[in-house]
Amino acid sequence: MKKLINDPEHVVNESIEGFAAAHTDRVTAHYDPTWVVRNDAPVPGKVGIVSGGGSGHEPLHAGFIGPGMLDAACPGEVFTSPVPDQMQPATKAVDGGAGVLHIVKNYTGDVANFEMAAELAEAEGTRVRSVVLDDDVAVQDSSFTAGRRGVGGTVLAEKILGAAADKGYDLDQCADLLQRVNNQVRSMGMALTPCTVPQAGEPTFQLEDNEMEIGIGIHGEPGRERLPLESADEITQRLVNAVVEDLPFRRGDDVLLFVNGMGGTPLMELYIVYRAAERLLADHGITVTRNLVGDYITSLEMAGASVTLLKMDDELTQLWDAPVNTPGLRWGM
Amino acid sequence: MKKLINDPEHVVNESIEGFAAAHTDRVTAHYDPTWVVRNDAPVPGKVGIVSGGGSGHEPLHAGFIGPGMLDAACPGEVFTSPVPDQMQPATKAVDGGAGVLHIVKNYTGDVANFEMAAELAEAEGTRVRSVVLDDDVAVQDSSFTAGRRGVGGTVLAEKILGAAADKGYDLDQCADLLQRVNNQVRSMGMALTPCTVPQAGEPTFQLEDNEMEIGIGIHGEPGRERLPLESADEITQRLVNAVVEDLPFRRGDDVLLFVNGMGGTPLMELYIVYRAAERLLADHGITVTRNLVGDYITSLEMAGASVTLLKMDDELTQLWDAPVNTPGLRWGM
Repeated sequence: MKKLINDPEHVVNESIEGFAAAHTDRVTAHYDPTWVVRNDAPVPGKVGIVSGGGSGHEPLHAGFIGPGMLDAACPGEVFTSPVPDQMQPATKAVDGGAGVLHIVKNYTGDVANFEMAAELAEAEGTRVRSVVLDDDVAVQDSSFTAGRRGVGGTVLAEKILGAAADKGYDLDQCADLLQRVNNQVRSMGMALTPCTVPQAGEPTFQLEDNEMEIGIGIHGEPGRERLPLESADEITQRLVNAVVEDLPFRRGDDVLLFVNGMGGTPLMELYIVYRAAERLLADHGITVTRNLVGDYITSLEMAGASVTLLKMDDELTQLWDAPVNTPGLRWGM
Repeated sequence: MKKLINDPEHVVNESIEGFAAAHTDRVTAHYDPTWVVRNDAPVPGKVGIVSGGGSGHEPLHAGFIGPGMLDAACPGEVFTSPVPDQMQPATKAVDGGAGVLHIVKNYTGDVANFEMAAELAEAEGTRVRSVVLDDDVAVQDSSFTAGRRGVGGTVLAEKILGAAADKGYDLDQCADLLQRVNNQVRSMGMALTPCTVPQAGEPTFQLEDNEMEIGIGIHGEPGRERLPLESADEITQRLVNAVVEDLPFRRGDDVLLFVNGMGGTPLMELYIVYRAAERLLADHGITVTRNLVGDYITSLEMAGASVTLLKMDDELTQLWDAPVNTPGLRWGM
């Protein structure tokens, strides 16, 4: 295991310490239990937006804290759900009187712990709504999941919900919107190489020199199939077709195309995937009206990529375009 | 070699095609010779800012095209200098009557080719000034270089010069400012793993499982020394101390601290390096007033990091903070 770390037991807190030091103008970190919150929380009258999950997917989630996106995030240990003790103070801290929305990726631990945190927060007088995201079309159940996994759609959902809360959507409107985003977003990923959890010290799985895993999970969970390595165009076709057929996306649809790197893939390669994906979508009669290309929901140093499509309309486009100011995603301010 | 590519011979153009398709609102690409230019070039009365170099360092340089940064970029083949045939039309296209500044990293091919392009452009009536950046303190000469290599300081220089040109600095003022930035910026990097140039198909060098290369170049050129793997804090101390001692940076200095990922390093690890670097600088009496953390000048999928320090003053701070709108660096618009 070759990593730029000190003690494997302390990677999350040390990383959050560095993150908070670099972005002290925006965020404050609390430790043990560990959670990160925007400096000006709570924003009076605004719905608070909280997310969280296992670490190792950076910049998700803490990297998306700031005006126009998340109010707080709870980082678990690497690839491990955070616990209610982290979510409860984060939820309370961002309640500006309009309640708090929990954006939860569908993993068994995350779902159970966010549920418990919501109950604890409600008992203290904070109204909470939760929506579970499950946009990964690869497999129905998985190592850490009953049902589909929550993956790249989460990044888009956090941006859109942050904008909605800024625009004055109330808690129920936010929850309805988040459910609608989840209903019309689909993703699938693939891996060329595994990754190594620092505390484990060994790769999460093995791939031969000529193999790839199609439908990989963001923790290295098995996907749909292990196949001989193909060209970028062929791989992209597998991902795009699986995503398009699932919703299904239809001729005439406008979409946001999100090509995400898993952490160890050169940006140059992500643009080769983007090129292929946009062309394939054009063949399907689907128009890419917005896009995002880069490492936004990663799996440590895994080499690979995922494709996410979100069906767009005027409301989602306006919310996507709204200003955002976070370490990981920023425009307009 | 496991990569998301099609034909190794076409990675640069295919990647640029994807890049131009994703950012069609901002940039236009030309092919064979290949160069990329902002859509609204030339900006009348503004000094044009052009850079370029071998590909494989994305988002550098094309990813920094847009308002507030570069007007055009010339991508060479992977780790190979672009040629004057690319630089000449790019230079001409961005001359809005105030001349064009070439930002050149110190590699033998880049320097010679930009010199020839400047002569060709001058012969056609475009005034050109060039400054060669050589901020890497690791080694005096190297595989591709007489003198020091140009590395991370280039990212900061491109941002600052883009802002200066927007503010109305004339060509000589831009060249003087770029020289001043180069005079007060220093960098050093390290690698945990090598990277593979697609056309070569084999790693650029070999490192044992317990080895790292301190002072690595961005093409995998040898650094200062190959050592047994150390902790992130120890590695950061090597990088920071080498950089601080070189200028030297002094007690009381304000600096921009840039922790850059080489392409295959998780963001989590870059923040662990940032944490250590900021603390070491505090021990030196040096204050970090601005920072940048992420993958901005990469070496394909190499795992590793570099540390860049730029001595700041009011002018550089204002220019750094000015709005920028590029695919790779964006704020304020």
